[in-house]
Amino acid sequence: MKSRRDFLGTLALLSSAAIAPTSAFAIDEIKWDEEWDVLVVGSGFAGSSATCQALDEGAKTIMIDKMPVLGGNSAINGGAFAVVNSNYQKVRGIVDSYDLYVKDILKAGLGLNRMDLVEVIAKNGNDAYEWTLKKGVYYRDALGQFGGHSVPRTIWPEINSGGKITIPLQEYAMKHGATIRTRVILDDFIRDENGKIIGAKVRENHDFDFDKSKDEADNKSGDVKFYKINGGIVMATGGFSYDIKFRQEINKDVTPDLGCTNHYGATAQALKVMMKNGASTVDLKWIQLGPWGSPDEEGFGIAPVFAIPAFSYGVMVDARTGKRFVNELADRRIRSEAIFKIHKNPDGSLTHPIVICDSVGAQGTTKANVQRGIDKGVIRVFDTLEKLAKFYSIPYDGLKQTVDNYTKYAHAGKDEEFDKPFFKFKDMVPDLSKPPFYAWRAIPKVHHTMGGVKIDTNARVYDTNDKPIEGLFAAGEAVGGPHGASRLGSCAIPDCLVFGRIAGKNAATLAKKEKKC
Amino acid sequence: MKSRRDFLGTLALLSSAAIAPTSAFAIDEIKWDEEWDVLVVGSGFAGSSATCQALDEGAKTIMIDKMPVLGGNSAINGGAFAVVNSNYQKVRGIVDSYDLYVKDILKAGLGLNRMDLVEVIAKNGNDAYEWTLKKGVYYRDALGQFGGHSVPRTIWPEINSGGKITIPLQEYAMKHGATIRTRVILDDFIRDENGKIIGAKVRENHDFDFDKSKDEADNKSGDVKFYKINGGIVMATGGFSYDIKFRQEINKDVTPDLGCTNHYGATAQALKVMMKNGASTVDLKWIQLGPWGSPDEEGFGIAPVFAIPAFSYGVMVDARTGKRFVNELADRRIRSEAIFKIHKNPDGSLTHPIVICDSVGAQGTTKANVQRGIDKGVIRVFDTLEKLAKFYSIPYDGLKQTVDNYTKYAHAGKDEEFDKPFFKFKDMVPDLSKPPFYAWRAIPKVHHTMGGVKIDTNARVYDTNDKPIEGLFAAGEAVGGPHGASRLGSCAIPDCLVFGRIAGKNAATLAKKEKKC
Repeated sequence: MKSRRDFLGTLALLSSAAIAPTSAFAIDEIKWDEEWDVLVVGSGFAGSSATCQALDEGAKTIMIDKMPVLGGNSAINGGAFAVVNSNYQKVRGIVDSYDLYVKDILKAGLGLNRMDLVEVIAKNGNDAYEWTLKKGVYYRDALGQFGGHSVPRTIWPEINSGGKITIPLQEYAMKHGATIRTRVILDDFIRDENGKIIGAKVRENHDFDFDKSKDEADNKSGDVKFYKINGGIVMATGGFSYDIKFRQEINKDVTPDLGCTNHYGATAQALKVMMKNGASTVDLKWIQLGPWGSPDEEGFGIAPVFAIPAFSYGVMVDARTGKRFVNELADRRIRSEAIFKIHKNPDGSLTHPIVICDSVGAQGTTKANVQRGIDKGVIRVFDTLEKLAKFYSIPYDGLKQTVDNYTKYAHAGKDEEFDKPFFKFKDMVPDLSKPPFYAWRAIPKVHHTMGGVKIDTNARVYDTNDKPIEGLFAAGEAVGGPHGASRLGSCAIPDCLVFGRIAGKNAATLAKKEKKC
Repeated sequence: MKSRRDFLGTLALLSSAAIAPTSAFAIDEIKWDEEWDVLVVGSGFAGSSATCQALDEGAKTIMIDKMPVLGGNSAINGGAFAVVNSNYQKVRGIVDSYDLYVKDILKAGLGLNRMDLVEVIAKNGNDAYEWTLKKGVYYRDALGQFGGHSVPRTIWPEINSGGKITIPLQEYAMKHGATIRTRVILDDFIRDENGKIIGAKVRENHDFDFDKSKDEADNKSGDVKFYKINGGIVMATGGFSYDIKFRQEINKDVTPDLGCTNHYGATAQALKVMMKNGASTVDLKWIQLGPWGSPDEEGFGIAPVFAIPAFSYGVMVDARTGKRFVNELADRRIRSEAIFKIHKNPDGSLTHPIVICDSVGAQGTTKANVQRGIDKGVIRVFDTLEKLAKFYSIPYDGLKQTVDNYTKYAHAGKDEEFDKPFFKFKDMVPDLSKPPFYAWRAIPKVHHTMGGVKIDTNARVYDTNDKPIEGLFAAGEAVGGPHGASRLGSCAIPDCLVFGRIAGKNAATLAKKEKKC
């Protein structure tokens, strides 16, 4: 791990132009192409909710996205949304509290979290959920318990896709007068002599280059425009998981060979614009790996979908011994670190852990998804444990012992090795003594960047002198702090919606003040 | 209803330019912009499968769609797919046969169906289903029984959307070298001196006009291009449900005020191109109305989704009497005609039948869909039958009697009035004696056009002299014949896939022959 000193060094380097407000443009000379109250940059959960909220405040609002499609990572997200004290918990008699939610988030985050931000998310998550209902989002009648959460509190939109949240929000925005444009990239802020944000330099008709070997900074495509902004700019620009070069500058442990679950646009480009303008950053080195990737497919893929039941009902074993080596439901950081410990052998060869579950576990996702995994060669099905052990070169005796023990634990309801909670599914318990066996190879993939710019509970972005940059707001993965060292699963959506709304509202309020002056 | 003479008269009028091959272009003078083996026009079920099949035959294939998005009606279709002797039936022990399938289709079609085409669909449906599996389509583990079908034989892709079939097919096509272009409209065929199809005149960058008050023929937008076609052209251009003007020319009973479930591009534009080129048409006057529309929303809407369980578990009553008036699971034509009989009152006022079901029926779709219906004001929920009767101005005594009788029938398992089969859902029987009551107003909407061009079992299009037009193929809703007077629910997808594959294969084979010469 990098030392804090190294880390600050990197930051200073990246923030070299950060001391004074942008000087590239003499603001008297700027010919404004358009005028808006609020500019929202990014169109995922945070951007879409900021846009809706700004509109509801009466602001003339534009939302831009550099990509040719809307939604960013949110659109390919699984839709899991952890909410405290929702109606879903109430009708099921589940007792939860803000404190317990905060405690769970802090545990995963190693206590490095910004408490004030976590509390805002905890207390406003259910309100954000109810607000989405009014915006046209529909939810399933189901409540789940994700790894690291003390109680079931995760809900999903009607199908397990974040798009079922972003699209209704965007439809609401369009119906209520928002302008939404794809292929518009933010190049810089325009600031007055006091550093206050008064506009943005963008390029319309931008062609994002999907070739990862090229440097995004070299892509000058698009037509430069200047937007005058009366209120504020909301940076809902997501994380930088796919920015291999920037990842290396921030944390060399996250090596370039690692796969990534994100959409291709998840780069540090917008973060760099903020840093160049003096924004303070938090926790950039904490980059989350999802322990449920497969080396046998690109991107997010099907393995994580199958992993939810497989980790609950099955075992993950070290292929060299056949033994379990971690609680399969521990938080993402713990599992990823445990996998990396066994991944590289002294002789340079690689070991992938093997996840194995029974047919009960395989029913935890749709048959279509299981079949998709089999067709892709990600999931393999075996009719004997011997064949499975042979295929993956696992010592059979070790594996047999693991499976026998686990079956015993599962029937007794107590995991004597890792204290994993056993879930019942349709009144069936996992039984690894019975074929068929479903198996896949696991490898962590870069999934989420905990770090980002520093904000306060009003979503105002702070500069390196710890003063708010007037007119600049940020929300969602672009922000550092709420999740500390590791974000709990299903806590991204409440974060994005809650702070997206706050940012949108406050950016719009600035425009109102401007008009009164 | 129009007489057959009137009908032929209309046809003759529309086909006035049909006698000789197109003469607008002197073929020696044409400068070809591009050369293809196969041109597929339309990108729904039929077009997408024709494209895949042509590619698999080695043809250089282009698929065009006049709309800005792919998929036409197929993309907004519910994905229901009736298959004989599928594995779904086998594992459930359901005995079915080609003969029974044909019999069901013929019963709905009043025996006016083209038997040879129906048999091809019956015998090749399961093969088409298995073929889609290889192309990357995934299905749910469920089997349903639609109205008019003697046995359960309907399957669905992993979510209830035709897009889950068309998108994988299009992805397969793109991966395997097809060119797919949106916003390209077919203007005419180019034919040689013998009438054989040798090319197409199209307009690229076409802007479809969504304003229904304008005439599509007046829209000249786009850049004219000439495609040389070595093999054949597949017309997978769908029906004309949304072409109000053409509907009126064909069947005045389908009045302009009727709503439509289709996408806006479902016009007669491509059919007119074929007719202008002498294509023979079949059954144009048979225009299907879906009995499950709601006057309280536009387009397909949410009512048809709720209608599936509501018609199974509930009753549809005449609001003037509170009495049932049709088997709620009769085929679409019978139900639509029954509704229209009670719709217009002698004094000019309109009566809408009211569909009522209990909470058992409401569980037949997702809670999200029920809530969507309530939010749209389409579905209304009442805690007493009195309130329901009052809201819809139904005589309470009549309604009460209907509900009491129906509850008795449901518990006895025998509908003494209309012999409707009672389904059990999670071992619950409908019970209209218990609140809450879910209700909505029904009105048929224009849904499907049974008529289209005449083809043979090789998907070759015939001219008005009953000779095949060399190089011209058609498949799907563009074709008349298979469904006679009324298409059974879930029989569109097998029709489109089976004949799409045949058309694609034969169009590609022509190109091979051409190369040998």
